[in-house]
Amino acid sequence: MKTKNNCIIGQSGGPTTAINASLSGIIEEVLSSNLYHTIYGMVNGIEGLLQGKYLDLSSLFDTKEKRDKLTTTPSMFLGSCRFKLPTCEDSESIYTSLFDFFEENHITTVFYIGGNDSMDTVLKLSSYAKAHDKSVNIIGIPKTIDNDLPITDHTPGFGSAAKFIATALLEVSHDAYIYNIPSVTIVEIMGRNAGWLTAASALARTSYSPAPDLIYLPEVPFNTDRFIEDVKRLRKIRKNIIIAVSEGIKDTNGHYISACSPVIDAFGHKQLCGASKTLENLLKPVLDCKTRSIELNVLQRSASHLSSATDLSEAVLIGKKAAAFGAAGETAKMVGYKRVSNTPYTIDIILADVAQIANHEKKVPLHYISEHHNDITPEFIAYLRPLIQGEPQLVYENGVPVYCDIAHLHKKGYFHL
Amino acid sequence: MKTKNNCIIGQSGGPTTAINASLSGIIEEVLSSNLYHTIYGMVNGIEGLLQGKYLDLSSLFDTKEKRDKLTTTPSMFLGSCRFKLPTCEDSESIYTSLFDFFEENHITTVFYIGGNDSMDTVLKLSSYAKAHDKSVNIIGIPKTIDNDLPITDHTPGFGSAAKFIATALLEVSHDAYIYNIPSVTIVEIMGRNAGWLTAASALARTSYSPAPDLIYLPEVPFNTDRFIEDVKRLRKIRKNIIIAVSEGIKDTNGHYISACSPVIDAFGHKQLCGASKTLENLLKPVLDCKTRSIELNVLQRSASHLSSATDLSEAVLIGKKAAAFGAAGETAKMVGYKRVSNTPYTIDIILADVAQIANHEKKVPLHYISEHHNDITPEFIAYLRPLIQGEPQLVYENGVPVYCDIAHLHKKGYFHL
Repeated sequence: MKTKNNCIIGQSGGPTTAINASLSGIIEEVLSSNLYHTIYGMVNGIEGLLQGKYLDLSSLFDTKEKRDKLTTTPSMFLGSCRFKLPTCEDSESIYTSLFDFFEENHITTVFYIGGNDSMDTVLKLSSYAKAHDKSVNIIGIPKTIDNDLPITDHTPGFGSAAKFIATALLEVSHDAYIYNIPSVTIVEIMGRNAGWLTAASALARTSYSPAPDLIYLPEVPFNTDRFIEDVKRLRKIRKNIIIAVSEGIKDTNGHYISACSPVIDAFGHKQLCGASKTLENLLKPVLDCKTRSIELNVLQRSASHLSSATDLSEAVLIGKKAAAFGAAGETAKMVGYKRVSNTPYTIDIILADVAQIANHEKKVPLHYISEHHNDITPEFIAYLRPLIQGEPQLVYENGVPVYCDIAHLHKKGYFHL
Repeated sequence: MKTKNNCIIGQSGGPTTAINASLSGIIEEVLSSNLYHTIYGMVNGIEGLLQGKYLDLSSLFDTKEKRDKLTTTPSMFLGSCRFKLPTCEDSESIYTSLFDFFEENHITTVFYIGGNDSMDTVLKLSSYAKAHDKSVNIIGIPKTIDNDLPITDHTPGFGSAAKFIATALLEVSHDAYIYNIPSVTIVEIMGRNAGWLTAASALARTSYSPAPDLIYLPEVPFNTDRFIEDVKRLRKIRKNIIIAVSEGIKDTNGHYISACSPVIDAFGHKQLCGASKTLENLLKPVLDCKTRSIELNVLQRSASHLSSATDLSEAVLIGKKAAAFGAAGETAKMVGYKRVSNTPYTIDIILADVAQIANHEKKVPLHYISEHHNDITPEFIAYLRPLIQGEPQLVYENGVPVYCDIAHLHKKGYFHL
């Protein structure tokens, strides 16, 4: 039974390669179960919607082929924003403007796909709806490469970033091993406050390669003296040392290591190097070998050519379940994963109170970090491993992957509010 | 008919993802046609051989499955060296030592896979053999991501690096397009003297994305004023600008742009930023938008998870042909590609006098660079496009690609000389 109610979906925060998989899952479920009449999409999240930017997704993705292409497209198809929704006390007009729009367009459910800050938006909108008796359900769908949301076992987007990082580390180790000269390679990985992604570098280890030999997460203080000792000790037994380090490592006072030795540019401006470059500069005077640093950079979050099939299929599934929950009247909730078993790896989709998630950050628990704070534990590897399994079949054209037209965001024509 | 002659193969120079494909091709042809009795491999090239490091490849890769795994393994399986062979006048003992070894081990052909410097080794060894009446044939097999060898239409390894660069550029553009704020992204690509790889970024362009909007090669002088003008002009018509720049861009005096604005570290040492970071620092004070720089780094040459199937199959073929030429008595030659046609794309394998190649560098011809020196021509794209076609089927285990054990290089047991 097709209702006359409509829904709207927004995407927010930083890119992942799985965020469109959840978008695709919502659309799939809505279309196949006739949950809503029209599926709208906010362009550039809640901020774009406030500027009147939205579009009709139902017609854009009306075939499985189109949705499959969307599933494997990196970065937000709908565009993103980094917008902290003010409280209702600070700006009620924003809320009345949004809910007037929802009412005029028969929108009874808002799906918002994002991380911590986006769940804050879900919390605020749903609280407003409850307080003002608006019949609009607000459902959050998690998404972040950082894996730092509480309650959910892991986040969509994390497994794909982890797979890229593990593969890149393995390939970097092949690059390092070939010369008959000793070397130290420091690979810098994203995650300013949480070390989940840096830990995933351990999945690069094979029967022939122990790289990364050392892993440093931001959850424990980084001691530069102990770091130099770690490297010097290893240099005695290994020719090539590969080190994985989080961009967010901090000293015992909580200051970023990368802030400890700024460089001065030609204009006299102070500039921060990355953490890996800082460590490279630290090692060079005390080591007798080649030292280099590598930042994996934005490919960690946008390399859809190497997503995890497990991650993408779970992200589609969580989108589908979110659509069903929204249509069933749930609100102020975030969908999440519960790990049922590791062998075989199985998950359930759960619903959590979004107030428990918004603005909370889940760091790597200390029992997952090795005693000497320079590696992770086997239990942590067992947690991580299932998340990077499987390779999605991508379509290539002219030698590069076929993705959805994301440049549409720059075109006119989405100003209807 | 199995002969009692043996051959030896060495790999040298910088990593590519196709250099093991040529190794695999040589082994395949030798085994299937019984060209030699034993195939030896130098460990760490000619330098390692001089230290007595070599191994038996015939038994290591005696099945198609093992050779297929070798074909898709990044970086030199045999290890590499950066060793300039002295002239015979400077050090005859090196030559007598090598040719004594060849004679003792019934080695009648040496295959050397590498770039410019490696072809210098091929030239010197073959000249020595001729001058001293040694019946050892020396055959060079090209390999370099830089594509800077003359005579051959392109080099094994280039197409795979080009495919990774094009895909990464497309994914970086998806990463840039999602925000509703203007941005400039500068992507730095390898190639200090030749711009072939930087030009390959143009293959990222799709029907919806013109990125990279600007391309700067090292073949023409880089003018910072004109660069700022280029960016400012584009900023008026495009929200997000993606720029591809060679690490080797130089000013009109031939000085590297990256050397123009060194930074001073905490120890007072002068350090060079990369070209992209230098341009970022240049743009920041004069632009009103977010500016970032990204180095694609060593994944350009080692990302076997995204090789070009065309590149790998051609690299296997050139290895096979090299084996046949070596067994047929050719010497002082490098095998190469001749492009027969673009539609359909077909190549022939040719033999070239290695003296024409050693120490010569092939730069991008000026007619391939656009009039304003900030892009490449359609003819250049037509040249590049066929080289990145096709995706090899990789085997994955535990979520990462299965490659050959390259860490064997660090083990003992290869000292037989």
